[in-house]
Amino acid sequence: MTKRFLGTCYYPEHWPREQWADDARRMTELGLTWIRIGEFAWSRIEPNFGEFDFEWLDTAIETLGAAGLKVVLGTPTATPPRWMVDRHPDMLSIDENGDVRKFGSRRHYCFSHQGYRKESVRITAKLAERYGQNPHVAAWQTDNEFGCHDTTLSYSLAAQGQFRRWLENRYESPQALNEAWGNVFWSMEYDTFDQVELPNQTVTKSNPAHRMAFRRFSSDQVVSYNKLQVDEIKKHTDAPIAHNYMGRITEFDHFKVGDDLEISSWDSYPLGFLEDRIEETEEFKHAHSRQGHPDFQAFHHDIYRAVGNGRWWVMEQQPGPVNWAPYNPAPLPGMVRLWSWEALAHGAESVLYFRWRQAPFAQEQMHSGLLRPDSENAPAHHEALQVAKELQEIGDDDAVRADVGIVFDYESDWVTDILPQGDTNKYFDLVFDYYRAARKFGLSIDIVKPNATDLSDYKVVMLPGVATLSDELRAAIDKFDGVTIAGPQTNSKTNEFSIPVPLPPNLPGLDATIECVESLRPSEQPKVNGGGHVQRWLETLDTNANVAGELENGKAVVVRQSNMIYVAGWLDQVGLANLFKQVCTETDIAIEEMPASVRRRDTDGYKFYFNYGPTAQTISGHQVEPAGVHWEKR
Amino acid sequence: MTKRFLGTCYYPEHWPREQWADDARRMTELGLTWIRIGEFAWSRIEPNFGEFDFEWLDTAIETLGAAGLKVVLGTPTATPPRWMVDRHPDMLSIDENGDVRKFGSRRHYCFSHQGYRKESVRITAKLAERYGQNPHVAAWQTDNEFGCHDTTLSYSLAAQGQFRRWLENRYESPQALNEAWGNVFWSMEYDTFDQVELPNQTVTKSNPAHRMAFRRFSSDQVVSYNKLQVDEIKKHTDAPIAHNYMGRITEFDHFKVGDDLEISSWDSYPLGFLEDRIEETEEFKHAHSRQGHPDFQAFHHDIYRAVGNGRWWVMEQQPGPVNWAPYNPAPLPGMVRLWSWEALAHGAESVLYFRWRQAPFAQEQMHSGLLRPDSENAPAHHEALQVAKELQEIGDDDAVRADVGIVFDYESDWVTDILPQGDTNKYFDLVFDYYRAARKFGLSIDIVKPNATDLSDYKVVMLPGVATLSDELRAAIDKFDGVTIAGPQTNSKTNEFSIPVPLPPNLPGLDATIECVESLRPSEQPKVNGGGHVQRWLETLDTNANVAGELENGKAVVVRQSNMIYVAGWLDQVGLANLFKQVCTETDIAIEEMPASVRRRDTDGYKFYFNYGPTAQTISGHQVEPAGVHWEKR
Amino acid sequence: MTKRFLGTCYYPEHWPREQWADDARRMTELGLTWIRIGEFAWSRIEPNFGEFDFEWLDTAIETLGAAGLKVVLGTPTATPPRWMVDRHPDMLSIDENGDVRKFGSRRHYCFSHQGYRKESVRITAKLAERYGQNPHVAAWQTDNEFGCHDTTLSYSLAAQGQFRRWLENRYESPQALNEAWGNVFWSMEYDTFDQVELPNQTVTKSNPAHRMAFRRFSSDQVVSYNKLQVDEIKKHTDAPIAHNYMGRITEFDHFKVGDDLEISSWDSYPLGFLEDRIEETEEFKHAHSRQGHPDFQAFHHDIYRAVGNGRWWVMEQQPGPVNWAPYNPAPLPGMVRLWSWEALAHGAESVLYFRWRQAPFAQEQMHSGLLRPDSENAPAHHEALQVAKELQEIGDDDAVRADVGIVFDYESDWVTDILPQGDTNKYFDLVFDYYRAARKFGLSIDIVKPNATDLSDYKVVMLPGVATLSDELRAAIDKFDGVTIAGPQTNSKTNEFSIPVPLPPNLPGLDATIECVESLRPSEQPKVNGGGHVQRWLETLDTNANVAGELENGKAVVVRQSNMIYVAGWLDQVGLANLFKQVCTETDIAIEEMPASVRRRDTDGYKFYFNYGPTAQTISGHQVEPAGVHWEKR
Repeated sequence: MTKRFLGTCYYPEHWPREQWADDARRMTELGLTWIRIGEFAWSRIEPNFGEFDFEWLDTAIETLGAAGLKVVLGTPTATPPRWMVDRHPDMLSIDENGDVRKFGSRRHYCFSHQGYRKESVRITAKLAERYGQNPHVAAWQTDNEFGCHDTTLSYSLAAQGQFRRWLENRYESPQALNEAWGNVFWSMEYDTFDQVELPNQTVTKSNPAHRMAFRRFSSDQVVSYNKLQVDEIKKHTDAPIAHNYMGRITEFDHFKVGDDLEISSWDSYPLGFLEDRIEETEEFKHAHSRQGHPDFQAFHHDIYRAVGNGRWWVMEQQPGPVNWAPYNPAPLPGMVRLWSWEALAHGAESVLYFRWRQAPFAQEQMHSGLLRPDSENAPAHHEALQVAKELQEIGDDDAVRADVGIVFDYESDWVTDILPQGDTNKYFDLVFDYYRAARKFGLSIDIVKPNATDLSDYKVVMLPGVATLSDELRAAIDKFDGVTIAGPQTNSKTNEFSIPVPLPPNLPGLDATIECVESLRPSEQPKVNGGGHVQRWLETLDTNANVAGELENGKAVVVRQSNMIYVAGWLDQVGLANLFKQVCTETDIAIEEMPASVRRRDTDGYKFYFNYGPTAQTISGHQVEPAGVHWEKR
Repeated sequence: MTKRFLGTCYYPEHWPREQWADDARRMTELGLTWIRIGEFAWSRIEPNFGEFDFEWLDTAIETLGAAGLKVVLGTPTATPPRWMVDRHPDMLSIDENGDVRKFGSRRHYCFSHQGYRKESVRITAKLAERYGQNPHVAAWQTDNEFGCHDTTLSYSLAAQGQFRRWLENRYESPQALNEAWGNVFWSMEYDTFDQVELPNQTVTKSNPAHRMAFRRFSSDQVVSYNKLQVDEIKKHTDAPIAHNYMGRITEFDHFKVGDDLEISSWDSYPLGFLEDRIEETEEFKHAHSRQGHPDFQAFHHDIYRAVGNGRWWVMEQQPGPVNWAPYNPAPLPGMVRLWSWEALAHGAESVLYFRWRQAPFAQEQMHSGLLRPDSENAPAHHEALQVAKELQEIGDDDAVRADVGIVFDYESDWVTDILPQGDTNKYFDLVFDYYRAARKFGLSIDIVKPNATDLSDYKVVMLPGVATLSDELRAAIDKFDGVTIAGPQTNSKTNEFSIPVPLPPNLPGLDATIECVESLRPSEQPKVNGGGHVQRWLETLDTNANVAGELENGKAVVVRQSNMIYVAGWLDQVGLANLFKQVCTETDIAIEEMPASVRRRDTDGYKFYFNYGPTAQTISGHQVEPAGVHWEKR
Repeated sequence: MTKRFLGTCYYPEHWPREQWADDARRMTELGLTWIRIGEFAWSRIEPNFGEFDFEWLDTAIETLGAAGLKVVLGTPTATPPRWMVDRHPDMLSIDENGDVRKFGSRRHYCFSHQGYRKESVRITAKLAERYGQNPHVAAWQTDNEFGCHDTTLSYSLAAQGQFRRWLENRYESPQALNEAWGNVFWSMEYDTFDQVELPNQTVTKSNPAHRMAFRRFSSDQVVSYNKLQVDEIKKHTDAPIAHNYMGRITEFDHFKVGDDLEISSWDSYPLGFLEDRIEETEEFKHAHSRQGHPDFQAFHHDIYRAVGNGRWWVMEQQPGPVNWAPYNPAPLPGMVRLWSWEALAHGAESVLYFRWRQAPFAQEQMHSGLLRPDSENAPAHHEALQVAKELQEIGDDDAVRADVGIVFDYESDWVTDILPQGDTNKYFDLVFDYYRAARKFGLSIDIVKPNATDLSDYKVVMLPGVATLSDELRAAIDKFDGVTIAGPQTNSKTNEFSIPVPLPPNLPGLDATIECVESLRPSEQPKVNGGGHVQRWLETLDTNANVAGELENGKAVVVRQSNMIYVAGWLDQVGLANLFKQVCTETDIAIEEMPASVRRRDTDGYKFYFNYGPTAQTISGHQVEPAGVHWEKR
């Protein structure tokens, strides 16, 4: 059984030293345990190159520890000081248009810059040496929000140089690269690796295989950059190491970063995400503007549980209005509590509120905190207090193992980003559509890694849009006794971004060939017999499998052979619901139809219900108010 | 009592010398007095560096003067010739993306370039020496439309260098700057002023304090650039000096420029502005496409009367279709007369039509004039003639001192531009909403400067959105006997762009604290009890003041303590009307509800009514046709 | 009588050599004749500079020829290999923002680069020498899709240098250039040609005369570049030479390129064009998403027949979904046949399907072909086979000479592009509106060149929007006995982009002057008495001509004097239909009103009807299904 904690993000360097002890006292009184500090403080830790000032940080940690709090210490590498740029003027990343991304905010470094990598190791080592055995420093965080502000991809000379080495390593000869990418196509063949440039600013689209290689390289750079810090920290401590990922960032393979860390965590800003990172109707956004999307947080909770191989936190939890979305309303009273409990229900070990006190200055001055800038309690303070008390009452618990698994694959998102073939074809949306359709039946879901080797715990596994089936996953499916739901677009690309021959989907046990692929304009949504529509994407199959669903015009859209189901179009929520209902019945998965905007998640001990909607709903015989949470023993 | 005149903008250098005398004769016959010339003629005045040709200009001035006309002579610094760029290749400004803004149109100079400043002084001196005592040159204009085409902000190396000196002057030490800006936030601290770059092209948003400093610096550069020319002209003449500002340009502080000039003037293009610079519904634009916005010109007239400390002109008046808006229809017959009289009613000393004859060549070839390219009278000629006659009849008059003052503050517009916190939060729109709501009651309004020291002539003063209350204004409000209407967002920032503690609004005599600030999506418009809605912005107050207005959900949205009213949300026109009506009644301000699209403005002697709408309206017992003007003695 | 053929585009370099013979056999069996090859194969023909490998190409040609096929051999200059960029790093073009357009796709060369021009001549000479007398190489193609991917305009240093020489040649002195352009306007006068820069990145719009000169220069660069290759090929063969133009590309004067070639051809992608290059309502696009626009292909067929002086082909015909539009559906069954027959009905000598086999790799991997990637027949194969059989049956035929001619003038499209004066004013759209209104009456139409000298074969000639009437065309109209329909905007500019005095339209035999010009917002559509509306553009005429059409407010919108008609506004389809009906009646042109989305085109021998609509239609007593073609003897 997992112990669960609350916490907050604190910046002692922002406040007078005299205030620290009182802050610590109030944190303890609120029921907080974990305090993350340090991740933006490089200019205070090392005001000039080689001149360190640890005194203030020693004191801050000691003050927090003395109050009974535990510290998560962040490496400050997301904010290299200005002197660093003087030392390494070419460390700045370059955007897709070839423009330098200047100093003056944060994340102003290119992952490929070897000089900056060394500096990152150096500061990490300094911190790990000093605090690795500190009794109050009980966890570490590397950097901050890798990839945020579009920082995974850099088109710098440093990146170009490293990319060439990466290609050499992968392909060994330019001839092999030319062959793999099909460079004969437009006389794009290379004679040496040093002729390969980054795939931006070409006259028309560059070769998708070229772009895919660059995406893989860029992801690998994040992985290796993170690992440099991890290796350094581990020399000095056994404390767990985390990174705080962001929402809907897919430019690097989080699973690979996660495999080098003990804990996965993410920064959950439901209202900011709704307005800024989710495509939904105006009507939907209006109805959820103070609650957030009812599935978006859950989806990330489940992804990050997989990324953390079971161990995960919310490192930053929205406590009130944020400062960065197009519109920034306050959450409905109760939502901060709801979001906290939802994270815990999905298995989070800790939920930390961002931030302790609203900073009245600089970029995030309009971002709320648990305290107002004048140190009075802000509205979230009250809700955090309630969660702390409830957590005491409910005690330890664990995430449940789900009956349904959905594969999420970062590389597949790069595939549709690089070559969507239709403006609305986005892998992330496709998987999210499957996820939320399943959640309408109250199902708990696990996210499955694309190289999973064992699916035997599941009754149903879904793999829509996984562009290239790994050998591991193919083998696992082959021996899987449950029902597999694949398609559309599953296994539609080779590992080098071309169309496989034999043609897709070429799935184990399925006799079907895709003859024609179409992307559909939004106005074209052919009806499915029995309910629902196909949107965005439609494939024409030549198949001997059973037709399990067809369009009004007779075209097969769902086919089935034994326990393998292939979906040859992008089904809407109604179409998916019909399909899932049938499969759940067949596989003895108990379903509970959710009232609008209510969602359920089970733990080992409890069933939790969350009302994301604007009106009260009755569930399990209980009335749950808007922003309300209801739990009961399973 | 002020004498009032008509005039036009004339380009003798565009036409054969043989035509000048006839043009002058026709100008006089039309009833014009003022002829502005010279402001784009540098390449004809100084064809090569140091080689001057004044003969043609001497002749042109003499020809105009001989016909009884008076000349406004413009310095030609908005159009440095091509040889200038050879002399100073780095004088060109750089846009926000880091791209140079090349020669080939106009305003291709960076205000911070010291070399170009010297050249500007040099040509100004030459002109002032030669024409300072010319009997026909009775007024001067500096440059042309400062800030037009987004030219206030330049990201050049010249600007960077001057910005660093400006910072040094303001902050004295990098430590003080770091402290003022809160640079500790993301380790953005500087060790020297020479590390400070311009705040463009950062990875994510740069520090708002950094951007605010750059905005202030950039504004100051315009002020000092203008003053260089003024100082030079004043060495040689006592004639008044003007600058012709543009509409809805707020990137520099016009009040500061205005304080160095005798006359403020602006270039009024109602139809171009409607389509190009005003956010309104399609329906509204359709109904006013040949008239312009009924409040937009008036608002600028009042602003520029304040900028000119009472003395102001329309230096360029639209006479027919322009060439630069997305759609360029012809004005409704009568509108050129209406616009002219509206300016005069707001106190303009002169109205000059732009331009005398439509130029058949170059960028503005589709911009109409008083004459067609073939020298026949264009439609506006007839209307100008009517105004000239009416002006003779009506005689001298003066602007009335209004009962209502609204503070307009350029810096506040920079604040919402830098950190809007919601996509629809724009200071200009907020003030304009207050202005036009008050105008619906037929009120004449004065624009009040943000450093006003005496408000005693007013019955009501409004200061919505003034980000930082100056000491002067705070003192003036403190002793003001009338009613003050503040908020939302009034006094919400310190002078260094942070949130003040004690928290806003912190107004004299008002016991209220803003607990929470929200920006609202357009679909979210909570109803106000008694009528109207809140849009865009909503604050939550902790207050002991009386609640004078609340939302349907009971939330206070207007509070009052004695004669101080605070509005805690962005009220729509209905909400503001309800509030203003009450306040006018209380303060004995006579109101007259305007029929749709009719507006009123009083002078010392008259009440003027202007019908901007597409249908006739009855006002004061008179039927006023579309595009009609009605005046009667007060 | 013209023999007509089918063919395909083939890339032997993409496939194993073992497959070539079988491919050739299947092509012959399908009834194909022409096989285009080689146009992207430079890196295989010359793997390194000066090292040639012709063996594979010899074999491929021999294999095709042995099967009875005829080869169109393309020069590979649209895809210079990577080593070329090492040889000429400055050969890359520069976009309007000043950014280099890098290697990695295609068309990565600047037309003005002298070094690359020499390389193009060199490779063309090599190919012509080797294959000029090859019995199987029966036609040639220069380069590929000039201007595609916005490649006509380049802002490189090479272009700047050549532009200055071009200007010197045209104007002889900077003074003459200044005078011609009206550079006095904003002191834009030049002292030397080397001061003239390219007209991009100016602060506000550069002089339209400057931009027009740059557009003419850029077009001339394409013309001369093509001619370099043509001259080289002609040294070695008498085989006809073609270029494959694209749809809706107007940045260079196709007539001038066409005059150096024997055959004009174009690449027809009806579904891609509908979604990507045509502005139409969503409703219209939805109804035609699997058919394409019913007039767009026809319009280009007629344009390219004129460009080819009668001889023209479709070099690339869409066979199924393409890969480059926002949405890429499959054509309705039958459309590939329909498109083929429509081209033939408009006089095409050959129709080649693009491409033989779908390539599973690189940029166009999602572009369908006649074969699938696994070499099975794709759906289009069946339709091509049907066309081949029908072509056998119907035998030889010729394009008919039409009664109606419409002038199309590339320079006029540059004029509205440079200075539209209203966002919706686009010359291409204007001409297309006239074209499709006439087609609604079943008329066959000829496109007339803007320098046509003889119009005597026509009964009606239309010249809407021709900005500058050439001396030739003015003379031809003057002696034309039929009816001329001009305007709006006809003859509204001098050859140096200014407004002519006497004012427009100044047409032979028409006593009318445009007093005022207006662009209209989309919401403003004044009604025409008798039906229809004016949109986008409206002129006010001072005229003694007869009023043949007027607005509801009495304003003249169509005037007529003898056989010259002038249209003073942008009439919608109803307004144009009314006008055309009257003129057809008067000139004895037989009209047949087309049911919705059915179109007709006559050949010497037949009347052809094409149903582009989603429902069956009855025409000439026959029911024609969606995607159906019906023909009958004339």
